[in-house]
Amino acid sequence: MTTDYTPMWRELGLDITAHNTLLSVLGDAYSDIYLTQTNRPEGMAYFNFVMSEVHGLRIKELMEARNQGRKVIGCYCTFVPEEITLAAEAIHVGLCSGADFAMDEVEKYLPRNTCALIKSSMGFKLAKVCPYLECADMVVGENTCDGKKKAYETLGTMMDNLYVMDLPQMKSPEGKALLKAEFIRYKETVETLTGKTIDVAALKKGVTIANDKRKAMARLAALRHHRPLPISGLDALLINQVFFYDDPARFTASLNALCEELETRIAQEISVVPEGTPRILIAGCPMALPNWKLPAIIENSGAIIVSEESCVGERGCRNLVDDTADDLDGLMDALVDRYLAIDCAIFTPNTERIDHIEAMAKAAQADGVIQYTLNFCQPYAMETLPIEKSLETSGLPTLRIETDYSQEDMGQLQTRVEAFVELLK
Amino acid sequence: MTTDYTPMWRELGLDITAHNTLLSVLGDAYSDIYLTQTNRPEGMAYFNFVMSEVHGLRIKELMEARNQGRKVIGCYCTFVPEEITLAAEAIHVGLCSGADFAMDEVEKYLPRNTCALIKSSMGFKLAKVCPYLECADMVVGENTCDGKKKAYETLGTMMDNLYVMDLPQMKSPEGKALLKAEFIRYKETVETLTGKTIDVAALKKGVTIANDKRKAMARLAALRHHRPLPISGLDALLINQVFFYDDPARFTASLNALCEELETRIAQEISVVPEGTPRILIAGCPMALPNWKLPAIIENSGAIIVSEESCVGERGCRNLVDDTADDLDGLMDALVDRYLAIDCAIFTPNTERIDHIEAMAKAAQADGVIQYTLNFCQPYAMETLPIEKSLETSGLPTLRIETDYSQEDMGQLQTRVEAFVELLK
Repeated sequence: MTTDYTPMWRELGLDITAHNTLLSVLGDAYSDIYLTQTNRPEGMAYFNFVMSEVHGLRIKELMEARNQGRKVIGCYCTFVPEEITLAAEAIHVGLCSGADFAMDEVEKYLPRNTCALIKSSMGFKLAKVCPYLECADMVVGENTCDGKKKAYETLGTMMDNLYVMDLPQMKSPEGKALLKAEFIRYKETVETLTGKTIDVAALKKGVTIANDKRKAMARLAALRHHRPLPISGLDALLINQVFFYDDPARFTASLNALCEELETRIAQEISVVPEGTPRILIAGCPMALPNWKLPAIIENSGAIIVSEESCVGERGCRNLVDDTADDLDGLMDALVDRYLAIDCAIFTPNTERIDHIEAMAKAAQADGVIQYTLNFCQPYAMETLPIEKSLETSGLPTLRIETDYSQEDMGQLQTRVEAFVELLK
Repeated sequence: MTTDYTPMWRELGLDITAHNTLLSVLGDAYSDIYLTQTNRPEGMAYFNFVMSEVHGLRIKELMEARNQGRKVIGCYCTFVPEEITLAAEAIHVGLCSGADFAMDEVEKYLPRNTCALIKSSMGFKLAKVCPYLECADMVVGENTCDGKKKAYETLGTMMDNLYVMDLPQMKSPEGKALLKAEFIRYKETVETLTGKTIDVAALKKGVTIANDKRKAMARLAALRHHRPLPISGLDALLINQVFFYDDPARFTASLNALCEELETRIAQEISVVPEGTPRILIAGCPMALPNWKLPAIIENSGAIIVSEESCVGERGCRNLVDDTADDLDGLMDALVDRYLAIDCAIFTPNTERIDHIEAMAKAAQADGVIQYTLNFCQPYAMETLPIEKSLETSGLPTLRIETDYSQEDMGQLQTRVEAFVELLK
């Protein structure tokens, strides 16, 4: 960051000392993991810049937008329909949950056996180090897993602007009705918050912005299916993470520009890795910014990640909203259909996820699958065993990794990943 | 057991050797924990007998009923409406989940970090040691917590008669609609299974049987509020456990007979413990048969349990169904209202549970509350911290115990419980 944003952070009520510590750790990690990569596409310069300004310029933009009367809505999950937020000209941002912070404080409110992502969400609140959270006019939680569902009860006592969205557990007619009712309630809440009426034209505009972003993500995903491989998995993960923070139109344009460069690279047979480098698909829990631990280990072990079956990855951004309906109810139905197609492990049954992982692995020419689960994440942990059986039946080698955000198991993970990569050669 | 039931168990496909081991461990534990108690009410003889025949005579009854064309429905949870089962003259039984069995096998299917109750359910199936499970015409699972919801996906591959009931996560109008739709689906499924039509008269009959059972339980609960205390917590827990297995009319009659004896005891000032014995309320996870570990430790530490805020306890059996409606739809609504009032930790928000625990503690003249959570049970673990804060504000000492079905932590638990009891004196 070239500017001193301290006055802005102070205005937001951040704990400046703690926040400086966070930024310093984040900067060091980014330098070590990202800037040491060689042969990166030039288009990554934009994402480097976004990362360097993630708590700076982007927050300044949000503050300026607020000064102009726009609202900021912060979310923890891909189930919150961004289209509705955008339809009201509000700003939709993901909230920090990818690093340990204030864990001692957190464990006064949450059981120790809670997944790192949930603990992180609360840690960032308790420590006052997330400028997105502090500048949000509304924070949206959602009843996905038991851990999040119950943690929001406590988080709600720490902020006065938490809104919780209910979610179904089955994709039944009643489940769909529940989701639709919740999307209508969200729309009405956003209308009240922003003072804007979401009509057909506005909602279509929101759908278009979000669809364009998803189309660009799909374009990136498809380019990674190629040999030679034009971009690293770490860089692709970063793009997936920035997806949640950046201005959507600018993000889409920058990503499309990058994709053009990647297309040229493919035509020119420029690869980020030597031929024969084992190609890995990662499947499982989301890797929220700045959780780069496992991908860094994988790509430092002589393998390359070609696809992420994750909320921060294809699960979160695939499937477009059908924008053909000409009435609000039809568009809301289309929204519900798009979000209900998400193959999150909170649903039962969720066999389409196995099929999706296998199709993704095939499309991306993956040599192996690493299932990534956060400790104590029951829904994804429960799915690892049947998925492993299914993948092995299909002849795809798999590795199960269960970890958190600490650095304590780095050596052990490195050893296990290296052994797996060796197997794939 | 006086009869050799081996041929019956063999007919059910039980693993006779493993089942004998289970019965032997169960018998020894029962002798050690229950039969060493002094000054028990005479009415406990009936429950002793039921326990001694829990895998014998009761199974024989179920087999005979099946031979007469009746159906047996096995359930894992108090959310399954027994009234509907009874309306179709089917038999509603709880399924064994209170002891570790075949854990090595279980961990091939479920993550190690799964709660003991869920692991036990699968262990009893894999090891073929639960005659209730093996003689059930239909087994009903339900989407309560993440762990159970996902475990049923795997359990369903091990049996061809698993039926899963969806449940809401919020007590909203949509949540209520979902529960009603599921109760209607259950009713239709039971009608198909039994070949019987559930009309108003049949459903009223089912409601009456279940309500009578619950009234008797409420009578027992109220008698335990007294000083002198006429019955031990261990004996009351046993009754709560037998509640799930026994013929309901016989159970109700036997319990009411016991309650008459307890009323006499109270009038005669006969107590099972000396005056001044600290009175404990247990709150939290269910204690399925034969999980007596913590209650035995508490009552061996010089305290006495006066109430259980648990599915196997007051949470599971309080609240009657309003039987005044004269049409099926009205009765189904009354059923939904009764079950939706359950203050299970799967619901959010669930603040009524705190109020309920405090009211129970006051009514039972409890000196302290022990919160009991099974390891890795996220919903109840998540509620322990806010409940503890609330109880302490009300001046009620609390202790949090997290454990499983193993005996490994017995010494540690004993030490912690003794220290807590000492505090209450």
